[in-house]
Amino acid sequence: MTTTPALPETSAPAAIPGFHLYDTTLRDGSQQEGLTLSVADKLAVARLLDELGVTYIEGGWPGAVPRDTEFFARAAGELELRHARLAAFGATRKAGVAVADDPQVQALVDSGAPTITLVAKSDLRHVTGALRTTAEENLAMVRDTVEHLVALGREVFVDAEHFFDGFLHDPAYTTSVVAAAHAAGARAVVLCDTNGGMVPHQVTEIVEDLRARLDAGSAVGDAPVRLGVHTHNDSGCAVANALTAVRAGIDHVQGCVNGYGERTGNADLVTMLADLQLKMGLELVPEAALEDSTRIAHAIGEIVNMPVSPRSPYVGQSAFAHKAGLHASAIRVDPDLYQHIDPREVGNDMRMIISDMAGRASIELKGRELGFDLTGEKNLLARLATTVKQREAAGYSYEAADASFELLLLDEMGRVPRFFSVESWRATSHLLRDGSLETEATVRLLARADDPSSRSVTIAEGNGPVNALDTALRRGLLETYPQIDELELQDFKVRILDSHHGTDATTRVLVRTGGAGLEFHTVGVGTNIIDAAWEAIVDAYTYAFHKLGI
Amino acid sequence: MTTTPALPETSAPAAIPGFHLYDTTLRDGSQQEGLTLSVADKLAVARLLDELGVTYIEGGWPGAVPRDTEFFARAAGELELRHARLAAFGATRKAGVAVADDPQVQALVDSGAPTITLVAKSDLRHVTGALRTTAEENLAMVRDTVEHLVALGREVFVDAEHFFDGFLHDPAYTTSVVAAAHAAGARAVVLCDTNGGMVPHQVTEIVEDLRARLDAGSAVGDAPVRLGVHTHNDSGCAVANALTAVRAGIDHVQGCVNGYGERTGNADLVTMLADLQLKMGLELVPEAALEDSTRIAHAIGEIVNMPVSPRSPYVGQSAFAHKAGLHASAIRVDPDLYQHIDPREVGNDMRMIISDMAGRASIELKGRELGFDLTGEKNLLARLATTVKQREAAGYSYEAADASFELLLLDEMGRVPRFFSVESWRATSHLLRDGSLETEATVRLLARADDPSSRSVTIAEGNGPVNALDTALRRGLLETYPQIDELELQDFKVRILDSHHGTDATTRVLVRTGGAGLEFHTVGVGTNIIDAAWEAIVDAYTYAFHKLGI
Repeated sequence: MTTTPALPETSAPAAIPGFHLYDTTLRDGSQQEGLTLSVADKLAVARLLDELGVTYIEGGWPGAVPRDTEFFARAAGELELRHARLAAFGATRKAGVAVADDPQVQALVDSGAPTITLVAKSDLRHVTGALRTTAEENLAMVRDTVEHLVALGREVFVDAEHFFDGFLHDPAYTTSVVAAAHAAGARAVVLCDTNGGMVPHQVTEIVEDLRARLDAGSAVGDAPVRLGVHTHNDSGCAVANALTAVRAGIDHVQGCVNGYGERTGNADLVTMLADLQLKMGLELVPEAALEDSTRIAHAIGEIVNMPVSPRSPYVGQSAFAHKAGLHASAIRVDPDLYQHIDPREVGNDMRMIISDMAGRASIELKGRELGFDLTGEKNLLARLATTVKQREAAGYSYEAADASFELLLLDEMGRVPRFFSVESWRATSHLLRDGSLETEATVRLLARADDPSSRSVTIAEGNGPVNALDTALRRGLLETYPQIDELELQDFKVRILDSHHGTDATTRVLVRTGGAGLEFHTVGVGTNIIDAAWEAIVDAYTYAFHKLGI
Repeated sequence: MTTTPALPETSAPAAIPGFHLYDTTLRDGSQQEGLTLSVADKLAVARLLDELGVTYIEGGWPGAVPRDTEFFARAAGELELRHARLAAFGATRKAGVAVADDPQVQALVDSGAPTITLVAKSDLRHVTGALRTTAEENLAMVRDTVEHLVALGREVFVDAEHFFDGFLHDPAYTTSVVAAAHAAGARAVVLCDTNGGMVPHQVTEIVEDLRARLDAGSAVGDAPVRLGVHTHNDSGCAVANALTAVRAGIDHVQGCVNGYGERTGNADLVTMLADLQLKMGLELVPEAALEDSTRIAHAIGEIVNMPVSPRSPYVGQSAFAHKAGLHASAIRVDPDLYQHIDPREVGNDMRMIISDMAGRASIELKGRELGFDLTGEKNLLARLATTVKQREAAGYSYEAADASFELLLLDEMGRVPRFFSVESWRATSHLLRDGSLETEATVRLLARADDPSSRSVTIAEGNGPVNALDTALRRGLLETYPQIDELELQDFKVRILDSHHGTDATTRVLVRTGGAGLEFHTVGVGTNIIDAAWEAIVDAYTYAFHKLGI
């Protein structure tokens, strides 16, 4: 569905039926140390979350974070969601302020988000100590804000902040906050383990106690209170605490992809999804979406530049890796005896570490993915496995660089396309006496390899040396390959490998190129970052020319 | 205690009373992809584990792994353990072989380890499919090997491999393996979730079912069966599954420091320890040892060259770090409301992260952390908050760059140190016709700002332009600041911001510098990656000279 800024007031969108898989990567996940998302990053992540099939995407806190205000504004026009509904996060009205006069509440309305998730204090110590208001005023803040937004036609969830700690301290007051939110019209009240310190048996006991108190209370009315859970990993139990809450009857879970989040992170959304669907029998997303979860987790890791830990459950590179030895032959006989699920269910692969056979098998699989049938090509597969191993040892990574891998494959098959040849290049950055910076590059090349008449010497300025080199290269190729005008280097990532060597380290550059109906990644490696980028760029144009049938 | 190779035969060491915290970092943890331990590494890790106060240290598999045989031989003479007992890991006798004739069993005896942990198949499918023997022979293998080692005076534990999967498949057979091990004299039978796929409620149900079956059975005799648990993190529930087992009455848990281990890793031993001791009231180690756990986890991470994840519960660098401006003012009032434990209980620290979400309160806190009392400095704090916001909007991030933040603070306070001034620089990368790459940089500077007599023009080559510039800069500063020889740029990270602009993007570079007793991070930003790195490097030397009191 598409979010529209102008929703009809006084009619809230219909409730999304069934279990809620509520993603807060863009809001709570972005509290992770070192994680900063641009609006463009947020839009890209939201699209991937929608592909995964989450029920809700919490986009941010409009009105409090300028970037989030912009995100909702742009989402209205640019974000076509097929499954998920967009939620805006914000706080209940300020103490002593009428809800209609609270600009932060108005900013939530202005965001146009069909769902609004309000954070409310539910631990009395935070009400008096942090909000510096009274128990009763806090309840009124919850009631007023929920009623106000419901009356304006929004679906409202309430995150009961510090719920578990609050409940242990003063269960009656904490229960009254949950009851007030429900009575005011909240579609779900989410029990937050904000400090992340719970262990599973506490979750069970507290949820059961809360239910008993709510059932005994009068404030709730006839409709049962829908409860959600929001957990953090400070005790190493974020996922388990959520699963435990689900066993106790909760049907709305919040988490972040790759477990991003403040401190030790939020519950890993993909791990929860896979556990709930594959271990606990809930059908939350289509099988095909779950099979896409490894790709999606890694793609989000690339966008936020926080790679997926190899040890991540289900989607990590090592999640189904076996050290060759003891088990190797038994695994070949019956892999299911040695893995908790079939890795294909989450789009991951079993991997044998230090094993030529596994190397060849996965290269064969990869080739098939790219449209090459390599069945029976033993020698070719062996050569390729050796080349890939050598290059990966040198720092290359083909996991994300399909186009560079395909060029490697074409090369081994003797079908390497050779369009142009570069004689030499030079890139110079010059900080001048007046503080300005001059960056220029020159490229000498034959636009048609082996045709001296196609030789050119070009020069270009640029914002940086790579930009200048790319521009000079394009100038040298444009006349021979006018299609280059349609191609654009869209993305550019740098990873320092062996970074403990300081400025003397190996660098890997991943470049995404798009245009002319193509979108693909290439990779380059070198101790010189400019040289590494250059290699990825040359691969990119070579691959594009080949694909375009030039 | 010291392990001795010549134990008196026929008298097993007395049982260690109470709960067993059993570490298998040196055995199962070393199955982790990329982790290789020398014998010296193993000895060093064992000493640290003993300091932490674990009950058992599983040292390896003597007889199967030559390095482990050597470890036990050297441990006898070199390892003085104060708390922990050393355990050797191995398999039950081979099918169809008398236990006294099995060289691998003999190697366990020869290791001299007072405790021997035997792995036994407990899933019938593995017995027939992998061992290729019968159900009855497998039981005999368990009985014979346990009885043999007990008769030789060893304490014996049995790891029931694939216990949980086996129990789900054939509970009667799996129970009979546990009962056989106990009846033969095993001090504990450890229920292993070898494939790591369990979720907590399954653990509870299976352990309770097993207990009922054992109680109903006749093979067990009068002594209750002591049960342990060994979990992996494939469902993201390793720690929680162990805690759940403890709630179900189990009093022996196995895990690895920092969650090392095959695939997704074993249960993190330190997280389990802290949860059990601080959340579940078990007194497993002295308070002072727990307060040492952050240091020990990081020290082990250094030895095995797999650094502790910043997001690790309790001991990670971010485990008690706060980013949100929202909470900062409340944290100032009462930090306990915002953390699940006092970080000092595990030897960690609360830390404020400076980000564009930060307001004056978090800047004040951050200043205090850095040793500046900014209480009441309203104007200064407001100016700093504005500056931080502006710079973060431009791409800077002070989250990880404490030193650059401190320079910003000193600047606003009018106490900015100005040591040297740079006139101009130039960095050139040149790919020559012969395919070789030449990288050089020149720097023109005054080593003492405003002193024309300190002017120098230096040139340097390098592996890349940043390395060349750094080398040229150091050459220009060396005579005036000989201390620069002790400083080293140790780490170097590059992040492309708004990377969807392709090669025309903004770049942020984070540099870690160490030496002369310092270790700190600085940050630089620019469209030109070389310029961004240059800014971080200039900040680094400026900060170091200031700190060194030059």
